[in-house]
Amino acid sequence: MPDNQTILLKSRPSGKPTLANFDLTTTEIGTPGDGEVLLRSVYVSVDPYLRGRMSDAPSYVPPFEVGKPISSGIIAEVIESKSDRFQKGDYVSGSLEWKERQVAKAKGLQQVDPGKAPLSAYLGVLGMTGLTAYLGLTEIGKPKSGETLVVSGAAGAVGSVVGQIGKILGLRVVGIAGTDEKVDMLTSEFGFDAGINYNTTEDMSAAIGAACPDGVDVYFDNVGGDISDAVLFHINKFSRTINCGAIAVYNSKELPRSVSVRPFLVKNSALMQGFIVSNYADKFPDGVRQLAQWLQEGKITHKETVREGFDTIPQAFLDLFDGKNTGKMVVNVKK
Amino acid sequence: MPDNQTILLKSRPSGKPTLANFDLTTTEIGTPGDGEVLLRSVYVSVDPYLRGRMSDAPSYVPPFEVGKPISSGIIAEVIESKSDRFQKGDYVSGSLEWKERQVAKAKGLQQVDPGKAPLSAYLGVLGMTGLTAYLGLTEIGKPKSGETLVVSGAAGAVGSVVGQIGKILGLRVVGIAGTDEKVDMLTSEFGFDAGINYNTTEDMSAAIGAACPDGVDVYFDNVGGDISDAVLFHINKFSRTINCGAIAVYNSKELPRSVSVRPFLVKNSALMQGFIVSNYADKFPDGVRQLAQWLQEGKITHKETVREGFDTIPQAFLDLFDGKNTGKMVVNVKK
Repeated sequence: MPDNQTILLKSRPSGKPTLANFDLTTTEIGTPGDGEVLLRSVYVSVDPYLRGRMSDAPSYVPPFEVGKPISSGIIAEVIESKSDRFQKGDYVSGSLEWKERQVAKAKGLQQVDPGKAPLSAYLGVLGMTGLTAYLGLTEIGKPKSGETLVVSGAAGAVGSVVGQIGKILGLRVVGIAGTDEKVDMLTSEFGFDAGINYNTTEDMSAAIGAACPDGVDVYFDNVGGDISDAVLFHINKFSRTINCGAIAVYNSKELPRSVSVRPFLVKNSALMQGFIVSNYADKFPDGVRQLAQWLQEGKITHKETVREGFDTIPQAFLDLFDGKNTGKMVVNVKK
Repeated sequence: MPDNQTILLKSRPSGKPTLANFDLTTTEIGTPGDGEVLLRSVYVSVDPYLRGRMSDAPSYVPPFEVGKPISSGIIAEVIESKSDRFQKGDYVSGSLEWKERQVAKAKGLQQVDPGKAPLSAYLGVLGMTGLTAYLGLTEIGKPKSGETLVVSGAAGAVGSVVGQIGKILGLRVVGIAGTDEKVDMLTSEFGFDAGINYNTTEDMSAAIGAACPDGVDVYFDNVGGDISDAVLFHINKFSRTINCGAIAVYNSKELPRSVSVRPFLVKNSALMQGFIVSNYADKFPDGVRQLAQWLQEGKITHKETVREGFDTIPQAFLDLFDGKNTGKMVVNVKK
């Protein structure tokens, strides 16, 4: 039996995670029983929200256990099937463990079609990433044509899709990202109206004001730190903020502080709401249908950063916090 | 012609307002033209939101002008009428100037019935105060029976009504106020389940946790400062915060800062929304009907702090920021 590489949570991070928090080891593969399949991982998704599961603080998803495998969204090939639902050679998507091969229950896996879109797209624009962008923007943001949308983490997996959907829906779209290269990409590849580099802009509030002459109606917030404070000064009456992520403060050892949003909310009758895609599971089928249509029509560009090799998964995850990805970060682990 | 006392905005406050920001003077009364009435003020409402109008920062209501009369909700008696809508001896409610007597357009005034409720109640539970409590709680808070409601500024005009409506709707209601006397009143007069004195409680977060064993589902926030940070640690998944006021920071000269709400919103799929009663004008008639019914049924206690004399209006307003009122603060100015 070949070595089956597996990545465990070795220790809980304090502040920013490091490679020392992960343990690359090997595990037994096991044999599928009734209703189970044997899978070979192809693409592994790394996502900022996994940081939360590495801590043992209560959150919306249970924490990973120390000494046990980490899990995330994975596209896998069916090697052997003891389930009616899948055949050998099928590709599936599911929340799976960071293992090269594993046995999993067929229930909870969704078949994906490599003929309709690249396999990795099912972790990105046609997966939780795209659904987060689409449902967060439409369900909480409720954008109206002609309004102004600001997106933080705009060149990231979710942000880049949010901005493109914003343009489809007739909004002025301003993105905030951390390198000139990314900011260029916002306008040249993703169709944003303007981009701001938060690393080279001295006065973020002034820059947002200049890019949003009519103020900000919808703010899709993936970062949650100082950048979001700067946006706050420009929110319009009845504005909506989608609090989708707070990557800027996930690794904070101290309780993060900010400009108080409360007087701004009172003054503007404004809304802020936390968004977690899993709360909207009943809207997934419609969402995927809409996203797939836009993808096929060429209205959405599918951008990803692909790393190679199973053992690069932890570093790919760590690199999210340094903004080293453009679009969705995935790891191709197929040998 | 008798001296007609009038209060002008003398200067804009920096930080906490003082008596020096007001000018007590006399003005001409004038004569009503067609469609106008001559009014004698009876009850004058003082409200925290007036602080915002004393500044010239853009807000949801235009600022007062320096050298011009201040205005607020006033109950007045019709002394002379050149309008079909009102007769001499009628009582009306409207946004009027701080004058003993004044000429006003009949349009924009509402008749009030002193036979149905005490006149001052039309500034309180049957006026904007009651509507703010009712519509803020129901439209944004969307409370469900059995949930836990926390109210800050709980012994104040809006807060005391919010808590009572919360009990009518079947919630566990916990109030936060600033003196033992007020906290006693919350449970003994307003029917709250528990009260917390923020001035004598060392660890507010622990006290809120103890008073809300099932967490906080709805937070009606009238204060917006450190107290609200303490509540944040206890919000439940899908919780709703009504940002109705931020009296704790209205007088702040520096930009107020707080614990960042963003990671809490993300983690809990929680909502915060600014509430201004004027956005819900279409729901006023139903709201007043419901409040009047509860008042008549004895389900809501109408509590107010009444000051006497026209010249006490500025001090009554200033005392709001020191929490010297219980329930609605009004000034009886009828000579």
